Amino acid sequence: MVSRQKEPYKGRLALPGGFVDEGETVEDAFRREVLEECALEVEPIDILGVYSDPRRDPRKHTLSVVFVGLILSGDEKAGDDAGGLEWIDLANLEKIRDQIAFDHAQILSDYVQWKASAGTYWSTRRRSS
Amino acid sequence: MVSRQKEPYKGRLALPGGFVDEGETVEDAFRREVLEECALEVEPIDILGVYSDPRRDPRKHTLSVVFVGLILSGDEKAGDDAGGLEWIDLANLEKIRDQIAFDHAQILSDYVQWKASAGTYWSTRRRSS
Repeated sequence: MVSRQKEPYKGRLALPGGFVDEGETVEDAFRREVLEECALEVEPIDILGVYSDPRRDPRKHTLSVVFVGLILSGDEKAGDDAGGLEWIDLANLEKIRDQIAFDHAQILSDYVQWKASAGTYWSTRRRSS
Repeated sequence: MVSRQKEPYKGRLALPGGFVDEGETVEDAFRREVLEECALEVEPIDILGVYSDPRRDPRKHTLSVVFVGLILSGDEKAGDDAGGLEWIDLANLEKIRDQIAFDHAQILSDYVQWKASAGTYWSTRRRSS
């Protein structure tokens, strides 16, 4: 995760990401942002979800398409805009929840369930809710 | 599907949909658009995909979050903006491909595969490509 250098949530941990450029696919934006912020080449393997609650960013209404990705190559190194990188242990998610920016703790909880169910989590959850 | 009343792709068939309002989740936009265009109450059960190729709409770069939904209630009836509604037989998809607007024939092909694999299609496809 990336330590945020500016408000909102300055100093908290956030998943790498950013805005899609005009003329760019969301998959390419995912590859570009992780390369810029973490110096890692990644490939999307699934869509974890699309997060669009209007309250999720205090600045304005944004939506995030969240990918699960595989690291293809690279040694992680924070980009110029990132304060630092940190691997987190998902077993400690509840303990560090308050240090996490935006709704990214929720996204990580969803990822834990995605991982446990080998990617079929979403359809199951939605059908039963 | 909805028969388009205006350009681009005037007269062709399109999946119901539209733009997300500020302050609205993508799930609520899905429910609202299908209600407005088809008079059907639907519930999203999965995300089929996020389609963001910059060439998919000749007007400007748009992205569509495509949901698979269940019809909860209602009798289908075209809304004021829609030219008419038509159920299509997916077995005939190749034959009517030229009558379909935007990249919606591709979306329907993806849905056929989603349905055959009970929703695990995407993660499988992405891992093997």
